[in-house]
Amino acid sequence: MAERFDRIWHNARLATMRDDLPDLGEIAHGLVAARDGRIVFAGARSDFRADADAAEWIDCAGRWITPGLVDCHTHLVYGGNRAHEFELRLRGASYEEIARAGGGIVSTVAATRAAGEAELVASALPRLDALIGEGVTTLEIKSGYGLDTDTELRQLRAARALARVRPVAIRTSFLGAHALPVEAGGDKDRYIDLVCREMLPAVAAAGLADAVDAFMEGIAFSAEQTTRVFAAARALGLPVKLHADQLSNLGGAALAAKFSALSADHLEHTDEVGASAMAQAGTVAVLLPGAFYFIRETQKPPVELFRKHGVRIALATDCNPGSSPLTSLLLTMNMGATLFRMTVVECLAGVTREGGRALGMLSEVGTLEAGKWCDLAIWDVERPAELVYRIGFNPLHRRIWRGQ
Amino acid sequence: MAERFDRIWHNARLATMRDDLPDLGEIAHGLVAARDGRIVFAGARSDFRADADAAEWIDCAGRWITPGLVDCHTHLVYGGNRAHEFELRLRGASYEEIARAGGGIVSTVAATRAAGEAELVASALPRLDALIGEGVTTLEIKSGYGLDTDTELRQLRAARALARVRPVAIRTSFLGAHALPVEAGGDKDRYIDLVCREMLPAVAAAGLADAVDAFMEGIAFSAEQTTRVFAAARALGLPVKLHADQLSNLGGAALAAKFSALSADHLEHTDEVGASAMAQAGTVAVLLPGAFYFIRETQKPPVELFRKHGVRIALATDCNPGSSPLTSLLLTMNMGATLFRMTVVECLAGVTREGGRALGMLSEVGTLEAGKWCDLAIWDVERPAELVYRIGFNPLHRRIWRGQ
Ligand SMILES: [Zn+2]
Ligand SMILES: [Zn+2]
Repeated sequence: MAERFDRIWHNARLATMRDDLPDLGEIAHGLVAARDGRIVFAGARSDFRADADAAEWIDCAGRWITPGLVDCHTHLVYGGNRAHEFELRLRGASYEEIARAGGGIVSTVAATRAAGEAELVASALPRLDALIGEGVTTLEIKSGYGLDTDTELRQLRAARALARVRPVAIRTSFLGAHALPVEAGGDKDRYIDLVCREMLPAVAAAGLADAVDAFMEGIAFSAEQTTRVFAAARALGLPVKLHADQLSNLGGAALAAKFSALSADHLEHTDEVGASAMAQAGTVAVLLPGAFYFIRETQKPPVELFRKHGVRIALATDCNPGSSPLTSLLLTMNMGATLFRMTVVECLAGVTREGGRALGMLSEVGTLEAGKWCDLAIWDVERPAELVYRIGFNPLHRRIWRGQ
Repeated sequence: MAERFDRIWHNARLATMRDDLPDLGEIAHGLVAARDGRIVFAGARSDFRADADAAEWIDCAGRWITPGLVDCHTHLVYGGNRAHEFELRLRGASYEEIARAGGGIVSTVAATRAAGEAELVASALPRLDALIGEGVTTLEIKSGYGLDTDTELRQLRAARALARVRPVAIRTSFLGAHALPVEAGGDKDRYIDLVCREMLPAVAAAGLADAVDAFMEGIAFSAEQTTRVFAAARALGLPVKLHADQLSNLGGAALAAKFSALSADHLEHTDEVGASAMAQAGTVAVLLPGAFYFIRETQKPPVELFRKHGVRIALATDCNPGSSPLTSLLLTMNMGATLFRMTVVECLAGVTREGGRALGMLSEVGTLEAGKWCDLAIWDVERPAELVYRIGFNPLHRRIWRGQ
């Protein structure tokens, strides 16, 4: 008897991104069959059962199918707008002048605190739609512009709410340890107490975070403060991740690895000790070339060391108003290649399989494999390299989320 | 009696980009009235006649209107695809290996020669549509991938044909002196003879070029060879422009100025003598940050010198398969700001008024002024700086070409 499917995409070329296949896991004459939102078969037409039946057969006319894209590091939800600060900076305004004009992260925190949940959702939607318009089917969104318990909770609720108004999967990270709020009066230790004893338990009790993040840097929090946040997260059973080694090498990568972090992110200044520790721990390196580009960083992340030690590399937009107002994973791939010299295969894996791995979701998304969600991006390209090569060009033909 | 218009856009904020107004020539409570495809009025609501009538009133709900964007330097029409070469290069392939694999400009020339006019039009359309999708209403397209008379003519015909299938104004530049074709056997002088004595007269006779361009560089043509091309262009009454000082300072800017060129383009290595000569001649500096980014150039064009001498600065995509596969003027503006430290005002002027000036079309396009074509871009932004600040985000609400 014929097996019945909801939808079958045939006459397609597949970049399965399967980890057990070389390069892109390419299948020249491929087919994807889905039922109940899941992939039941993704492989060569010739390996598919001949008597299959489907409610809908979709002829892909030889187009390429990749897994739906995964943006594993964003600060998509925030209040306000920093375009004016950008404008002032280009006119030569000093840090002080910009601060006086209400710029900097302080302004984003103030605007986020002033915004209701519905307003946060509404202002994030155009950014989310830009990502979705390029085939993103899963993304992570952090808090960290509230810096008080109420606003952090509201930011996370807004992030979760986005998944109710758009066909997309959203993972949230609690980033209370993002920056020191003005009212803390410079006392970072006391603020970290608040993060660990009040904010984090409240976030966990509300079930609003899938992971806990922190920003470990001279201008943010120390290794000791980060350790306290991570210990509190572990006590609550939440996985961790870290903004590490972006502006200096404080050993963030190694600390993240010590806590078996899902990922360590940025990593421009990571050394071999850090890379090796990450490889041992299975911590994914999430590289963020948009921030590198926007703040005109010159120190590149040690891609060679990651390759040498077998650290998995993901790429993400880091979409945020201060250092990476970027809402394109396609462009992120081009920057990964152009600025960091990542290969086409690394870039495509970075926004699919490795992005999924960095979110702890590899069993559900990130490759074209039976059992995973049927999240697909179907592209009008002759070869997948075009997705990395072109700049400011979107060849998405169709995006499928959970089989639809 | 009421004056009658075809369309009136009201309740708008205008960035007129008028040269006689400071900054963006902003008008807070603005209105644009059009008839027969032309702007009849663009200014403050309060200055508009009270008894005006229009077939259509369009409420812009406070949105910003800028002039339609002008991309004044593209190589949009070509055959083939260089994504595979990009992929090989990232894998560490040498120049020789890439040449053996059929890469480099030679491959684009071969593919362009092999393509018919309809095929050239079809392959350029997605790129054109990407530009149009961001509000481009006027663009320049060069030949230069034929390098023989037939193919150069065909490339220019294809460029002109694009304007018959999309609502856009296209200016063509003959760039026979782009590179030396393989069959020239290394004899640049003899090839320039061919350009001047056969190609250029044929192009001019067919009325297929609005200007004549050349690539003056160690790897391309010398000052003497460029001078011959320019003299031939002048004899035919065609204005000139030049790919100048991109990789080294050969005095390209000054040579362009000597021939009263519309523009000198790239200019990373231009010195003060060149900048001063350009200012005297009214030659526009066309900066191409996409190519700077893509080939990882480190020498920036001397923006300070251009400001000092009052050289007008335009920005363009340089869309081409080898060094700038870029099809976004919005991203070009962000690169102008981020990489070249141009101000928001300079960037916006660069893709409107100065782009129009660089094409010799300032009397027709590039600003919101009575008498010009009614080419508008209407944006969902709170302030024009957002158009420069965001990366990989398209807030175009609507694009109007010639009043429609
Ligand atoms: Zn971040
Ligand atoms: Zn060019």
